[in-house]
Amino acid sequence: MTRDEARARDAADPLAGARALFDLPEGVIYLDGNSLGALPRATAARVAETVTAEWGKDLIKSWNSHDWIGAPQRVGGKIARLIGADADEVIAADSTSVNLAKLICGALSLRPGRRVILSEPGNFPTDIYIVQGLAQLGLCELRLVDRAALVAAIDSSVAAVMLTHVHYKTAEVFDMAAITAAAHAQGALAIWDLSHSAGAVPVALNAADVDLAVGCGYKYLNGGPGAPAYLYVARRHQAAIASPLTGWMGHVAPFGFDDAYAPAPGMTRFLAGTPPILALAALEVGVDMLLGLGMDALVAKGRALSDTFVTTVLAAGGDPALTLASPTDPAARGSHVSFRHPEAYAICQALIAKGIIGDFRDPDILRLGFAPAYLRFEDMVVAGETLRAILAERRWDRPEFRVRAAVT
Amino acid sequence: MTRDEARARDAADPLAGARALFDLPEGVIYLDGNSLGALPRATAARVAETVTAEWGKDLIKSWNSHDWIGAPQRVGGKIARLIGADADEVIAADSTSVNLAKLICGALSLRPGRRVILSEPGNFPTDIYIVQGLAQLGLCELRLVDRAALVAAIDSSVAAVMLTHVHYKTAEVFDMAAITAAAHAQGALAIWDLSHSAGAVPVALNAADVDLAVGCGYKYLNGGPGAPAYLYVARRHQAAIASPLTGWMGHVAPFGFDDAYAPAPGMTRFLAGTPPILALAALEVGVDMLLGLGMDALVAKGRALSDTFVTTVLAAGGDPALTLASPTDPAARGSHVSFRHPEAYAICQALIAKGIIGDFRDPDILRLGFAPAYLRFEDMVVAGETLRAILAERRWDRPEFRVRAAVT
Repeated sequence: MTRDEARARDAADPLAGARALFDLPEGVIYLDGNSLGALPRATAARVAETVTAEWGKDLIKSWNSHDWIGAPQRVGGKIARLIGADADEVIAADSTSVNLAKLICGALSLRPGRRVILSEPGNFPTDIYIVQGLAQLGLCELRLVDRAALVAAIDSSVAAVMLTHVHYKTAEVFDMAAITAAAHAQGALAIWDLSHSAGAVPVALNAADVDLAVGCGYKYLNGGPGAPAYLYVARRHQAAIASPLTGWMGHVAPFGFDDAYAPAPGMTRFLAGTPPILALAALEVGVDMLLGLGMDALVAKGRALSDTFVTTVLAAGGDPALTLASPTDPAARGSHVSFRHPEAYAICQALIAKGIIGDFRDPDILRLGFAPAYLRFEDMVVAGETLRAILAERRWDRPEFRVRAAVT
Repeated sequence: MTRDEARARDAADPLAGARALFDLPEGVIYLDGNSLGALPRATAARVAETVTAEWGKDLIKSWNSHDWIGAPQRVGGKIARLIGADADEVIAADSTSVNLAKLICGALSLRPGRRVILSEPGNFPTDIYIVQGLAQLGLCELRLVDRAALVAAIDSSVAAVMLTHVHYKTAEVFDMAAITAAAHAQGALAIWDLSHSAGAVPVALNAADVDLAVGCGYKYLNGGPGAPAYLYVARRHQAAIASPLTGWMGHVAPFGFDDAYAPAPGMTRFLAGTPPILALAALEVGVDMLLGLGMDALVAKGRALSDTFVTTVLAAGGDPALTLASPTDPAARGSHVSFRHPEAYAICQALIAKGIIGDFRDPDILRLGFAPAYLRFEDMVVAGETLRAILAERRWDRPEFRVRAAVT
């Protein structure tokens, strides 16, 4: 695709207007929305209103008058519409890591006698680490099996198969329905981490008969740095499942101040502490915006964007040391792609120096994300050609591009 | 104290200027800062800067360039100075409930073979509920003993004594040093919940030889609704203690993306998910302000304020049905006081109708808090006289004052 062709494609894009909903810096092509989503223009005003008009003016009364108390359920119910769930199956709370701990213990409570949590090596670290922490307490056992052998490894010792739908490095997509069915065939549950999926990739939890899921608010949902996460429990499990983090906000009557814990009905039992109201306000803006744009249009554009970028980068005559570490078929991957190159870190820095922001993952991965709401086809061609030029002219080979930052 | 005397006292108050640091609504006397602290004037601008300039403009780079990655340690280190701890002993993270779960499991990891968590009936519910949740998993056993018999109940089965320093209803203060010493004498640890103490009451964790502590960011710290909480681990325990919530941000090298969990040194291992940056920015403003005002001055004024209020309310000739449910000596209670009255709910509503905001706790408690930074002696006399008038004239006896809200 030439730049002119890309501009023509942008002019015809039904989502072209969505870019104006974001507050993007000048001169930047932001290919890291899979790590931290960009700032929706409406967020600053909404957060300011929550701070000044709600907290400042109405103070403690806001728990009722501005329905702060209902924010986790309200925001969760909106997220549900992005991931093929019903509103009463999702709640916004805590972090993905903490929510994973709740659901892993919850799965164990639903499958007494089974101790194994089955996952794959190289799953996103926090998912694996959380199981290791619970195993350290004697609550479960972690089993890691390569994805090719994963289904065959599901047996009657497995309480839950726990996987990330879109791999954080390679962007490979699991067949959620097939693996969930394979788990069910062995009496196991399926826990899906949607962090790299929701808001960019088709997710149909109910249609896939998924039991449990978690996800992150700060990637494609554009909820802001460290935004609250969410969790999903299929309605059929809600009456029986127990949360291990039985905080007062998950009590059936938190303002009864009784000494005995009794879980609230439905997803509310998965609340622990007081909901983070300022952060939930920011998250709600990001989710509302995606609902307005429509997941079908977002998915289609995300695939077209990443395909345009990959085609540009991998056109004949490029650096043979750069290889695609993601599936070639856009439908078989999430909305980011990874390339391998021995100098991936320096290449990433050289791109950033040109205003093209992606990220690096140890040891040799250059990872670039294609958030469909705010990127243009022209950005794809410009970024792809710039990457080609950096490689062709070895522009990455400068000492300043090798300085490692604390967060990469 | 007459209103004129109160105004004179305000004029001589070394903290009189602190009120201007808050964005308080007109016509309100806010006696609920023990539940949700008021809005510091600087917060709106700081949050807006974090949203617009940091997230919006610098996007993912902000983790390094604005030291988002160091925010939990930085804010925790500041909170440490309010509670008599060293900077490397406190970290800001998650909610009080979630942090309690971390420290209870942490205490069990430090005291293998001991299973009992000892507390008192009527402790703040979330503290008790969290132990009940962990007990449900088979990790520990909850034992509740009335405070008069508590010290005698510490034996070699007790892993930790877990108490709230200032009682959320009565405001009674435990002798932190004495109970911690009694725990240590039996080989047990002491876990203190500082939610109703920090920022208003003297707390000296190191001087009292406290092992573990948690606290809330949204009360006297003025961090905003659902602000991040914090946790403290005495340095002597940091190398050995394990967190049960082993998320990636607590890993020694989170960006190494290794499959094996290895805890970070120090307090960082108590992080789980990605830090909530917008909420931490708001919390930091509140903490910075208290540090600027000085805890000694805040404590002295808080005691004088509550003493003025109680003296006004309980002067001869008042409603005999209203009794003080808190210690009479201001030094023996926190910075709130509770009264009992059979019509406490309606009385609370009648006060709110006059712009005097306190709260109600089931079944008969009227609870009023005295945040020292933004209240005046004149407020105490006006609020106290208003309460007397409401009682004397039975102004609470109206149907609209009996309508219960979701959050009381």
